[in-house]
This record gives sequence, C-alpha cells and structure tokens, in this order.
Amino acid sequence: MPSRRSKLYPTPEDAETAFYEAFERADLAGMMAVWAASDDIVCIHPTGPRLQGFEAVRDSWVQIFSGGSQLRVRTVEVKKFEGQSVAVHSLVEVLTAPGQQGAGQSVLATNVYELGDTGWRMVVHHAAPMPEPSAPADEPPSPSHTLH
Amino acid sequence: MPSRRSKLYPTPEDAETAFYEAFERADLAGMMAVWAASDDIVCIHPTGPRLQGFEAVRDSWVQIFSGGSQLRVRTVEVKKFEGQSVAVHSLVEVLTAPGQQGAGQSVLATNVYELGDTGWRMVVHHAAPMPEPSAPADEPPSPSHTLH
Repeated sequence: MPSRRSKLYPTPEDAETAFYEAFERADLAGMMAVWAASDDIVCIHPTGPRLQGFEAVRDSWVQIFSGGSQLRVRTVEVKKFEGQSVAVHSLVEVLTAPGQQGAGQSVLATNVYELGDTGWRMVVHHAAPMPEPSAPADEPPSPSHTLH
Repeated sequence: MPSRRSKLYPTPEDAETAFYEAFERADLAGMMAVWAASDDIVCIHPTGPRLQGFEAVRDSWVQIFSGGSQLRVRTVEVKKFEGQSVAVHSLVEVLTAPGQQGAGQSVLATNVYELGDTGWRMVVHHAAPMPEPSAPADEPPSPSHTLH
C-alpha cells in the first residue's frame, strides 16, 4: 500500500476537498496527509492559540477527533487568491451534526496552500467563530449612545 | 501631489509596514492605499464578521479610527509563505497604548498580499484575539475529568 505522504494534490482545491473530507471522517492520517510536513505550518482553531509545526498541529487534531464528534462541513462563499506556488481560500464553514436540522454553526476560515515537490499542501488554517449577524463585534459604540 | 493609489509597494513586506504604520497613525488614506481596490478583498477584525469589498473594509476602518485610540503595534513571530504573486504572513500583533507598561494585548493575524499592476496590495486581513496561554481553548475536556 503506498504511503499517504506519496499522495499528490494536483490543485489547491484537491487539497481543500481532502482536508474537509478528513475532518468529516475524523480521519487523522487523511488529515495529516493534507498538511505540509514542515516546522513552519500554522493552525489556529476557533478561539485557540497559534499552533506551529507538524507535531503540534497533529496533536490538536488527535484531541479534536478524540471527542468523537462527526460533523458535516459545507464550505460556502469561497474567495480564492491563487498564485503559481501559493494559494489562499477565504471561506465560511457551515458545520452541522448528523441529523441536525437548520442552519448549523458557521466558522470563518482562511486556508493557505503551498506547492511543493509532492503537490499542493496546506500550510495555514486560520479559523474563527462567525459572530451573529445582529451583533457586529468591531463597531465601537456610537457617540450618540454616550451622549443620550 | 501624486495620488495615494499610485504609490507602489515593491514587496509584501513594504505593504505590511505601510499597513501597520497607517494603523498606528489612524491614517485612513494610508490604510486604504495598502488594500487592493477590489470587491474581492476580505477583512476579519478580532471576533468580527467577514467584511468583503473595498467599501465595507473602508467603512470598518473609519469606525475603528473614529474611536480615537492610537495603539502601538509590534509584529512578532512572523511566518512567511511567499510566492511570485501571492504572499501570506502569519504573525502576532502586540498592541500597546501610548505610555502603557507591560506585555500589551496580542492578536493573531493572517495577512495576504497579491501582486498587481501597482505593486503588492493587501487582499486579506484575518485577525483573532490570542487566548491566554493558561487557557487552551481547543482542548476538549480530558476523559479523566469526566470519570473522576
């Protein structure tokens, strides 16, 4: 059986599809096959610290997958910035539990892929909870609120 | 006087320096000169929604700068993934108020730059609060905690 590491992702889209398939299946080997085997990779889970390097990133997925949850992930509103060797996808992950009705939880993600000798691999995954539309978090209080 | 828009950033580093200088000065024109004039740009302020397009991104900086705060920003732990036309910097922003002693507030940022006809411009800024080191946010409760 060929090693997972030998598997090529011919495009950033292929790597991204493999990333979310591994996430849905809680497939650690599949997940880590998507990442570049490098000390430079960066992973930020929602509200989490910045994890650096293959081992730290791997450990985080071990912990996440050990929770036993098997979420479905739909990616929407994908914006792509693609160069010859570096590609960035900004997107919204819509997460739902099996059998769950309704909208699901949404996560904002910035995914970065780099082209190496073995095809495209993920080098950055930066994820953050999407705030409720009714509660914009960045707007300072309107001056009128402090005057009335 | 030449238009701000004609100003070139020969490298992603030049664009990044201009971004943080404009941020420190609350300089709206300087800030928006760094961004690509495009409907595709994406800006996520800490805990905020995903803003898309030049006007929405500009509006957010108007609001932030209207607060009157003039923070100092130091960028540390910069990881770079640079291609010929797309570059990504993952870094930590250390924010301090003028005269403030001590560590300051830290923000995790993923900055993406794209090379266009007018040099390198920012196309994505994704920022998130850095959690306290003592409170890792992504670790599920240890099974032993639920058994004891």
